[in-house]
Amino acid sequence: MKSYVFVLFSILIGIACTDKSGKSTELSSNQASPKHPNIIILFCDDLGYGDLGITGHPNIKTPNLDHMAGEGMRLTNFYSGSPACTASRYALLTGRYPIRSGFDWVLYPASERGIHPEEVTLAEALKNVGYATAGYGKWHLGTTKKEYLPLQNGFDEYLGLPYSNDMRPPKWPDIALLKGNDTLELNPDQRKLTELYTREAMDFMQRKQNEPFFVYLPYAMPHVPLFPGENFEGKSKRGIYGDVVEEIDWSVGQILAHLKNLKLDKNTLVFFTSDNGPWIIRGLNGGSSGLFKDGKGSTWEGGMRVPAIAWGPGMVPAGTTNTQTASVIDLYRTMITLAGGTVQESAKVDGLEFTDVLLGNAIPMADRTLFYYGLSNKLMAVRKGKWKLHTETYSQTGKDYFEGKLPLLFNLDTDPSEEHDVSDQQPELVAELIDLIRQQQEKMEVEGTYFDEN
Amino acid sequence: MKSYVFVLFSILIGIACTDKSGKSTELSSNQASPKHPNIIILFCDDLGYGDLGITGHPNIKTPNLDHMAGEGMRLTNFYSGSPACTASRYALLTGRYPIRSGFDWVLYPASERGIHPEEVTLAEALKNVGYATAGYGKWHLGTTKKEYLPLQNGFDEYLGLPYSNDMRPPKWPDIALLKGNDTLELNPDQRKLTELYTREAMDFMQRKQNEPFFVYLPYAMPHVPLFPGENFEGKSKRGIYGDVVEEIDWSVGQILAHLKNLKLDKNTLVFFTSDNGPWIIRGLNGGSSGLFKDGKGSTWEGGMRVPAIAWGPGMVPAGTTNTQTASVIDLYRTMITLAGGTVQESAKVDGLEFTDVLLGNAIPMADRTLFYYGLSNKLMAVRKGKWKLHTETYSQTGKDYFEGKLPLLFNLDTDPSEEHDVSDQQPELVAELIDLIRQQQEKMEVEGTYFDEN
Repeated sequence: MKSYVFVLFSILIGIACTDKSGKSTELSSNQASPKHPNIIILFCDDLGYGDLGITGHPNIKTPNLDHMAGEGMRLTNFYSGSPACTASRYALLTGRYPIRSGFDWVLYPASERGIHPEEVTLAEALKNVGYATAGYGKWHLGTTKKEYLPLQNGFDEYLGLPYSNDMRPPKWPDIALLKGNDTLELNPDQRKLTELYTREAMDFMQRKQNEPFFVYLPYAMPHVPLFPGENFEGKSKRGIYGDVVEEIDWSVGQILAHLKNLKLDKNTLVFFTSDNGPWIIRGLNGGSSGLFKDGKGSTWEGGMRVPAIAWGPGMVPAGTTNTQTASVIDLYRTMITLAGGTVQESAKVDGLEFTDVLLGNAIPMADRTLFYYGLSNKLMAVRKGKWKLHTETYSQTGKDYFEGKLPLLFNLDTDPSEEHDVSDQQPELVAELIDLIRQQQEKMEVEGTYFDEN
Repeated sequence: MKSYVFVLFSILIGIACTDKSGKSTELSSNQASPKHPNIIILFCDDLGYGDLGITGHPNIKTPNLDHMAGEGMRLTNFYSGSPACTASRYALLTGRYPIRSGFDWVLYPASERGIHPEEVTLAEALKNVGYATAGYGKWHLGTTKKEYLPLQNGFDEYLGLPYSNDMRPPKWPDIALLKGNDTLELNPDQRKLTELYTREAMDFMQRKQNEPFFVYLPYAMPHVPLFPGENFEGKSKRGIYGDVVEEIDWSVGQILAHLKNLKLDKNTLVFFTSDNGPWIIRGLNGGSSGLFKDGKGSTWEGGMRVPAIAWGPGMVPAGTTNTQTASVIDLYRTMITLAGGTVQESAKVDGLEFTDVLLGNAIPMADRTLFYYGLSNKLMAVRKGKWKLHTETYSQTGKDYFEGKLPLLFNLDTDPSEEHDVSDQQPELVAELIDLIRQQQEKMEVEGTYFDEN
C-alpha cells in the first residue's frame, strides 16, 4: 500500500523540481538540486568478478570500465542480492532479500507469479520524489499479468526482453521485445540488443536532461546464448564471451560520454554491477569469478561477489577502492537517500544505506551482517564482518569443495578464495553465526513474504 | 668471453655520455640522450598474478602500483623465466632459458655452482654502454665463490641478502646481508629490508642522476617467511601477506615520486614484475594467482604468468594494456636495445626484443613461441601464439588437474584458466607443438649449458 504521505511528498518535490530554466551552467545543465542527482544503474547478466581489465582478466579489454573506475570508486566486497537472475533483480528493485518476493528465484515465461503490486520498487520510490524513470533491458519479475510489468511498477518507459534471453524458441515459446506493455517484435535479433538498449537510454537521458532521471539498464548480456553486435563479433581475444563484454564496455563508454556531452556528469551517479557470478557450467561461454570460488547459482563467493563501480565526478571520490561489505540490496535505500527520498517503514527493506561510503565519507560498518540466499531463495550462509559461515553449499557443477563438511567458516579478509576452513578452531564464533542464521530464518517466518500475507 | 668490440663500444658510449651539464630541463635533468634512459627493474619474490588491486585482489591495497599502471602499460600475457627463484633470476639477467645456466633451478647456501664468469649479465651489458649499475636485494645466483657475486657480474654496487630469506638459522647457517662482496651484518632484521633496499636504491638514483643508470631491485618479499616493516605490520585486511605487498606498493610509490622529484621521470623506464607465481602451499602466507591455475613451482599458468607494469612517461603510452606474449627473458634484449647497446651474438640469448611493444609501436608477434622450463629446469610445456601444450605437469600441492592425461592442449586466449583441454580435437596441432618441444630439447642438447662447455 503506497502511503498518502509519499504521494504528497512526491507532489511537493514535483513542484520544487518543475522550476527549471534548462540553461547550461558550467557544472551541469540539470537544474535539479545536487540533492537530486540523476541515477543510472548498469546491471550485467552473469558477468563474473574476474571478467574486466580492472579485475584482472588478461584478455578481455574494458578500457571504458577501467577508466570509469579510475574516475570513480571500486567496491571490492560488493555482492549481488542472489546468485540467480530473477531473485537478484527483485533484491535490487526492492532492497529486500529475495525470499520476501513470494515467488521462485527464477521465473519462467509461464510462471504465474510476479512482483506484487504493493511492492514499492526503486523506480516507484524515485518517481515519488520527482524522477523521470526508464528501464531498458531484462525485466524478469513476472510477465503473465500486466500488473507485473515495468510500467505498472514505477517505470515511465520500458523497452526490453522481459526475461532471460535463452527462454526462446525452439525450447520455449516466442519471446517478445516489449515496448511499454506492448510487443514491439517477436524473437528479435539479439545481436542488436546491447546497442538498442544503449541508444534508448541515451535518448531518454537527452529528453529528460532538465529533470532528475533514473535509468535502469539491465543488459541481456553476457547471459548465454551470447550475441555480440556486428562491430564486436570476433573482435575479442577471449572469444564470443569477450566480444559481448567488450560491447558492454563500449555501451558504458557511450553513456558516460553522453553525460559529459549533456553536461550532466557532475550531477549523475552511475553504478555498474552484475546480477550474479559467471555461468561457469557453460564452459567458454561462461565467465570467470577470478580468485573466487564457483559461480552463478552458488553461494560461494564466486556466485555473488560481483564487480562494482560507482561513478559520479564531484560526488564519488575518484580513483578510490572501498572494501566495505555492501550489496545490491543496499542500492535501494542508498539511491533513495541520494535522491532526497525516504523509505517507507512498512516496506520491511533489508538493505542498508551506504551513501556515505559512495560519497567518500565512509563510516565503515565493520560488523555488517549479510545473508546469502541461494538455491530457491534458501538461506545458505551468512557474512558478519570478515567471517563467513556456510550452513549449506551448492554448486551447479556438482563440485563439493570440502567433501560434505558443514558448517564451514572462512575469514574473507585474509582468505577471499575460501580455501582455509577454520570452523574447528572457532566453535564459539560458529555457534554465534549459526544463531544469526536461525534468527534470520525465524524473522522471515514471522514476517513472511510480506506483501502476500498482509 | 666478452668481446673487444663490446669494450670499445663501451668506451665510445662512455665518452658520449660524459659530456653532461647536470642542469635541469623541463623534461629531464638527465642529460643522457633519450636513447639512454635510466632503467629500473622492480622484481618481487613469489608475488601472484592476482595480488594487486589492478589485477583484481579485493583486499590488498596497491594504490601506487594501480597508479603506475594508469600512467604506464600493463602486460597481461607476461611470464617469468621460471617458476622458481634462482632460475628466474638467471633468465632475467642473461635473457637465456634457465637450462643454460648449468646449475640447479634453486641454489642453496652451500651450492657449489653459480653464474658463470663468461655470462654477460644485463648489468654488464648496460655497464658496457656507460650505465652506472646497482643491485639491491636477493641475488641467488651463487655465493660460494666471489666470482658469483654481483660486483663481479656487472654491478657497481650491491646490497642485499644473497639468497632466499628462508635460508637462515636454525635450519640453515647464518645468512649474511652483503654490501658489495662483504658481510655487513649476519641474520639482519628482515622487517627492515624492503625499506632498506628502497632507500639504498633512491640514494643511488640521486647520486647517479647525471649519468644513465640501471637499478635492479629484487625484493625479499613476499617470499615466506613474511616480514612487514613496522609501518605496515597488521595494516592490511589481507593479513601479513597483504602487509608485505602493501609495503612493496609503498616502495614503488617512493621510487616513482623520487624520479619525479629528481626530474628523471621522463627519461626512466621502470619495469615491475615477479620472479614466479605465488607460493600456494604456504596457505595464507602465500599469494593468489587470480584466475590462473596453480602457483610457484608449476608450469601451469599460475606458476609463471606474473603481473607486469612498464612505466616511462613520454616513452611508454599511458593507461594501456598489452596482451603480447612476452617474458622476463625478453627484458635482456629489450633493455639493452633501449640503452643503445647490442647483444653479443655468441651469448645465445633466447629472449626476444619487445622495445616496440613498450613504446606503443607494437608489431604483435602473433605466433610467438615461448617454452616453459619448470621443475629442475626441465622443459614441460610450450606456448605458440594462443596455444599451450603441456607434455608434463607438476604441482607443489600434488594436485593432478587432469588425472594424468597428457599431453594437454589449451587455447590461452579464450581459456586462460586452462580448464578446457582440446588436445583430442587438434591432433595435428598437438603433433606440431610436440615437435617444437623436441626441436628445442635437441637444440639445447647441441648447444648445452654453453658457457661451461666452451
